[in-house]
Amino acid sequence: MSSERLQPDLKLAASLFDSLREATRRGSGIVRDSYGDGEQAAHDIMSTAAQGLDLEVSVDAIGNLMMTLAGRDRRAPFIVIGSHLDSVPQGGNYDGAAGVVAGLCALSAFRQARIRFDCDITVMGIRAEESAWFDIAYLGSGGAFGLLDPACLSIPRSDNGRTLEATLVERGFDPRVIRERKRLLDPARIKSYLELHIEQGPTLVAEQLPAAVVTGIRGCIRFRNARCIGRYAHSGAVNREHRHDAVAATVALLHHLETVWLKEQQAGADLVITSGELYTNPSLHGPSKIAGETHFVIDVRSVSIATMQAVAAEARRAAARIGDEYRVAFDLGATSDSPPAVMDERLRAGLRAQLARPFEMASGAGHDAAVFAKMGVPTGMIFVRNEHGSHNADEAMTLEDFGIATGALLGLLVNFPLT
Amino acid sequence: MSSERLQPDLKLAASLFDSLREATRRGSGIVRDSYGDGEQAAHDIMSTAAQGLDLEVSVDAIGNLMMTLAGRDRRAPFIVIGSHLDSVPQGGNYDGAAGVVAGLCALSAFRQARIRFDCDITVMGIRAEESAWFDIAYLGSGGAFGLLDPACLSIPRSDNGRTLEATLVERGFDPRVIRERKRLLDPARIKSYLELHIEQGPTLVAEQLPAAVVTGIRGCIRFRNARCIGRYAHSGAVNREHRHDAVAATVALLHHLETVWLKEQQAGADLVITSGELYTNPSLHGPSKIAGETHFVIDVRSVSIATMQAVAAEARRAAARIGDEYRVAFDLGATSDSPPAVMDERLRAGLRAQLARPFEMASGAGHDAAVFAKMGVPTGMIFVRNEHGSHNADEAMTLEDFGIATGALLGLLVNFPLT
Repeated sequence: MSSERLQPDLKLAASLFDSLREATRRGSGIVRDSYGDGEQAAHDIMSTAAQGLDLEVSVDAIGNLMMTLAGRDRRAPFIVIGSHLDSVPQGGNYDGAAGVVAGLCALSAFRQARIRFDCDITVMGIRAEESAWFDIAYLGSGGAFGLLDPACLSIPRSDNGRTLEATLVERGFDPRVIRERKRLLDPARIKSYLELHIEQGPTLVAEQLPAAVVTGIRGCIRFRNARCIGRYAHSGAVNREHRHDAVAATVALLHHLETVWLKEQQAGADLVITSGELYTNPSLHGPSKIAGETHFVIDVRSVSIATMQAVAAEARRAAARIGDEYRVAFDLGATSDSPPAVMDERLRAGLRAQLARPFEMASGAGHDAAVFAKMGVPTGMIFVRNEHGSHNADEAMTLEDFGIATGALLGLLVNFPLT
Repeated sequence: MSSERLQPDLKLAASLFDSLREATRRGSGIVRDSYGDGEQAAHDIMSTAAQGLDLEVSVDAIGNLMMTLAGRDRRAPFIVIGSHLDSVPQGGNYDGAAGVVAGLCALSAFRQARIRFDCDITVMGIRAEESAWFDIAYLGSGGAFGLLDPACLSIPRSDNGRTLEATLVERGFDPRVIRERKRLLDPARIKSYLELHIEQGPTLVAEQLPAAVVTGIRGCIRFRNARCIGRYAHSGAVNREHRHDAVAATVALLHHLETVWLKEQQAGADLVITSGELYTNPSLHGPSKIAGETHFVIDVRSVSIATMQAVAAEARRAAARIGDEYRVAFDLGATSDSPPAVMDERLRAGLRAQLARPFEMASGAGHDAAVFAKMGVPTGMIFVRNEHGSHNADEAMTLEDFGIATGALLGLLVNFPLT
C-alpha cells in the first residue's frame, strides 16, 4: 500500500475549524467549557461531520465521542486517534480540537481512497481534558479507563459552582461510571493511541519546522513550598561573614541549580528547571534590611524519572551545603510528583519516517496521550508549529503545517506494519 | 598630663542607665519618642546629672541639651561629645543614650581629678536622631546646623499624626529655626566631634573585642525599584533557549553582584551589597509558570564613594549583558544616594592608640556623627560591643565594655594634642 499521493482532507479541516470558531467564539477568545455548552457544540460539529463521512458514531457514558472507520476484523485490537474538544476560558481554536479534526481528515481521505484497514480506527473526541473548569485534568480519558477518584464528582465548576456530578447528570451522562470506577475502554483492546496537538511552546517556530514527533510528556517533581529562613538585620551594619541572608542563599541555590541544568543539558538529558514563584515576606522585608525569609518554588521536569530524581536529590544536597555556608536554614518541603509518559519507540520511528525534516522534542504540558501511555497503550504524538503559545486567543497554526503533521499521522497508519 | 589612672565614672554610668530604663521602659522595650515624653524624660535625667557635676547646662531653640565643662579659653573652638537620647518604639536602653552617658562619665572623671582643658568640652544630648517617629533622620543635629528642609515641619508623627511643627511648639521649642534654616551651631567653632555608640551589628561579638574605632559611616547607592521584565510561559513547555525567565535572569544578576562583592572584599574594599526585597508578581506568578516579572532592591553601601559607584556601574553593565543573555529587560531605575561620612584620620589614630587591642570597622547605620562630618567638623566615633543588634529590647552592652570604650574617649581627650 502506498501513501505517496494520499493526502488528508484539508478542505474538511478548514470547514471544521471555521465551524468550531463560529460556534464557540466568545469575544476575542474561544470558550469550550468542559461538559458545558461550548464543548457540546464542538462535539456536535464533529459528530455531524463523522456521520457525513459514514463513520460509526457513538457516545460513551461520560460523553466521549467515538467515530469509527470499521476494519476487516471488527474484533481485532483497534487504533485510537484522539484529542480533547474542550478549551480553557478565552482559549484558542486549535488546542485540543486540532487532534480530532486531524483524525477525521485522515479517515475522510481513507474513505475517499477506499482504503480499508485490518482493524477499526476510532477518532475519539475526548471530554474535559483541561482543569480550568473542574479542578482536575483528564476527566474524559481518565474516566474512560476508570482511573478517577470518585471524590472528584463533588468538585464544583469554577464559574457556576455546580458539581461535576450535577453537571454530568444535566448533560445526560452517568456519574455512576466514575463513582464505581467502571472501565469503558479496555487498554488491552487498543492497539495504539495517536494524538496530534499544537505545540504549546515556541520551539518549532524557533526551529522553523512545521511539526515534531514527541519523545514523551515530561513528568514533574515540584518543591511547591520551599523556604529559606535567615535572620533580618540592617543592610549596612552587618558584614558578609556575619549575615544570615535568605535572599543571598536562595540566589546561590537557584544559581547552582542552573549550573546543574546546563550540565545535564550538555550531557543530552531532557530537563527544565523553573522557579516561577520567589518572594521575600512583604510584611517584614525592607529596602535597608537583610531578608530573613524567602518562599519559592522549584519545578523540575523531564521525560526521565532518573533525571528528575537526580536533580531533586542534588537540590536537597545543595540546600544543606549552601544553608551551612550562608548560615541559614533551607526547608525545601515535600515534593508533588507526576511521572513522565514515554512515547512508544516504534511509533516515534514510524512518525519520524513520515517527516521530510524529522525532529523530536519533549512535551512539557500534559495531554490525554499521557493517560493512554500510563495504561500501557503504545502511544505516539505529533506537535504542530503554533505561534504565541496555547491557552490564549492568539494561537496561530497554519493549515499548511496542520496538513504536514496530519499527513504524517495518515502515512503512519497506511504504513503501520500491524494494520 | 597622664591618663594612666584616670577612669570614667562608671558608678555614674550605672546610675544613669538605671534611671533611663526606669523612666522610659514601656512593657519589655524602651520608648523615648522623638520630641515626646520619653525623650524628654531622658533629657531631664541627663540635665539633672550635669547640674550635679556642676556643668553649664543650656537647651538650644530646638531642644538639644548642651552640658559644658568650661575650658581656660571660653572663646576657643570647643569639643563636642554627642549622641541622641531618643529611641525607636520598643527599642533598647543603649542605642543613643550610651554616647551621652559616656560624655558625662568622662566629664565627671575630669571634675573629680580637677583636670582643666584649654577649651570647652560640651556633652550634647541630641534630639530626634531616629526616623521612626517623624519620617526624617537627624532632626536635632541637622536642625542645629540649619540643614533641614523647612517642609519637614509638616511631617506627621507616625503614631499620633501631629506635625513636627505642632509638636515643637507644644514642647516649647521654636519651629522658626527650621523654617528660616537658622544655624544654632557654627561648625567652624567646633574643634572636633566625638561619639560613642553601641555597635548595631554582630562584628565585635564575633571578634570578641569590647570596642572598635569607626573608619567611616557607610554611604548608600540604592536601586530601590529595580525590575526585570520577561515573559510568562508554561514551565514545562518552553526549553531553556527559548525562555524569557525573569527569575533566572534576576538570580544571574544577583549572583554576579555577589562575585563582584567578593572580589572587592578580597581587594580590601569596604562594601556590603544587599537585596532585601525580591518578589515575583503574586497576581500573575504560579508554580507551573515561568515568571514574567520580578521586583527587587539592590542596596550598595561603602565608606568609599568610588567603590559604590563602581559597583553601581557594574550592576548596570551586568543588567544589560544578562538581560540580553536571558532575553529579558532589566530596568534598574534611578538610585537614591547618600554619601559616606569619613572619620578624621587623626582622631582615628588617637582612638586606636587608646585601645589595648586596636580594631577598626565601618559603621553601616547612620549616626549624628555623619552630620558633623558633613559640616567639615573633624569627627571620631567609637563602637561598643553589643549583643542582639540594636533597635530592639534585647540590646546587651556590658558596663565593662562601656568602660573600655569611654576610657578610650577620655584618654583621647586628655592626650589630644590641641587641648
